[in-house]
Amino acid sequence: MTIAVLGTGGGARCHIAKLLELGHDVVVGTRDPGATLARTEPDMMGTPPFRQFLGEHPRIELQAFGDAAAASNGLVISGIDGHNAVRALSAIADQLAGKTLIDYAVPFVYRHEPEHPWPTPWGIMPKLEPVDTDSLGEQIQRALPRTKVVKSFVTQEQSTVVDPKSVGGGEHTMFVAGEDADAKQQAVDLLTSYGWTDILDLGPLVAARGMEMYAHMHSAIGFGLGQQFGGHFGIKVVR
Amino acid sequence: MTIAVLGTGGGARCHIAKLLELGHDVVVGTRDPGATLARTEPDMMGTPPFRQFLGEHPRIELQAFGDAAAASNGLVISGIDGHNAVRALSAIADQLAGKTLIDYAVPFVYRHEPEHPWPTPWGIMPKLEPVDTDSLGEQIQRALPRTKVVKSFVTQEQSTVVDPKSVGGGEHTMFVAGEDADAKQQAVDLLTSYGWTDILDLGPLVAARGMEMYAHMHSAIGFGLGQQFGGHFGIKVVR
Repeated sequence: MTIAVLGTGGGARCHIAKLLELGHDVVVGTRDPGATLARTEPDMMGTPPFRQFLGEHPRIELQAFGDAAAASNGLVISGIDGHNAVRALSAIADQLAGKTLIDYAVPFVYRHEPEHPWPTPWGIMPKLEPVDTDSLGEQIQRALPRTKVVKSFVTQEQSTVVDPKSVGGGEHTMFVAGEDADAKQQAVDLLTSYGWTDILDLGPLVAARGMEMYAHMHSAIGFGLGQQFGGHFGIKVVR
Repeated sequence: MTIAVLGTGGGARCHIAKLLELGHDVVVGTRDPGATLARTEPDMMGTPPFRQFLGEHPRIELQAFGDAAAASNGLVISGIDGHNAVRALSAIADQLAGKTLIDYAVPFVYRHEPEHPWPTPWGIMPKLEPVDTDSLGEQIQRALPRTKVVKSFVTQEQSTVVDPKSVGGGEHTMFVAGEDADAKQQAVDLLTSYGWTDILDLGPLVAARGMEMYAHMHSAIGFGLGQQFGGHFGIKVVR
């Protein structure tokens, strides 16, 4: 299967590397391939330049967002940050038509003003927009009515999403939500191939509200565990 | 120990009954004791009139909020609904001074307009206010600077909070947050007496944001499990 991964940040790279390892063909989308390849400094999260990653994974094709989406034969994973996702995805609506799009972004509003340091020592994450009465997942689905949007992966670091068994304490739970049952099954199949054994379908995409808003709880738990960024834990629904 | 429980709804009754069972003296606070005793119909959640509960638990004293808070010798549990909590608690700030107040409310804005049915078939809960950049727990602490506020219990139904082992699937996690270490320890000791064995301190009260916003995720998980209201599950932090 040829899977498109949109985005070149740390989270996207987790999926790219894992998908290659699983034998998929991977086309990576970026806003401007030339600019992505020209970068020589780590990004704001400390992730090394993409060129270095490309050198380590020569099977990757790097293309513009729309070309990467068009190259997928069914599944697209969006690693575009929440602040830019609706705009960037709307621009390639034709190339995404008929496909399954897994969105894992948290719609943080990044703030770099001195009065709003991010992050704070106690894990106050940036504000979310939308929040509470809407979600990024629903916004993307409204913007892309011909695409089957699935919200998933969002409740954990992507390094844990692609390697759930790396959390030593036992089985934990991954969540999916979306309007299309077949699309959700594609996400479940992918997650199963990643090693997930407890995947809970939360129902329609409105559940993306809870999944995205869980970001603050995830952050608080990480701080509570003393892990701060790059938290290495999961939550298990015990029933 | 004499513990004050403020509120007479279903959640408060879980704590009242459990505290009596554990041998504590319990003083129950309500806005207007006469009105509470005069009620003969179930409330909006289907909870039977308090008079019936009182008949089954004759050791309870029912008093006005302020008198109940004053009767506590250290610990007060607020079961006042989130929409009214700041106003009701501010009015008895003197009686709460120097005490530990455990707040478990979710600040839902209840809406009964036909265009905003609550709840919907798919578990869209009412909107939260405050949300994201503030929390009810922090609001209460700001309103009661002489009181040690602890946010806890909020991530589960209170019937599960007072009986964690009733969830058959194994150990799950309870969370506490607050500015005062001794007050948090009081909450941890109480939770331990309820049967909790995994209690995670999320740090300062800012973590109440994540705990309260988790309400939407809790609702979605309950719907995903087909449990809807009165969900009977927990989450375990797997690390």
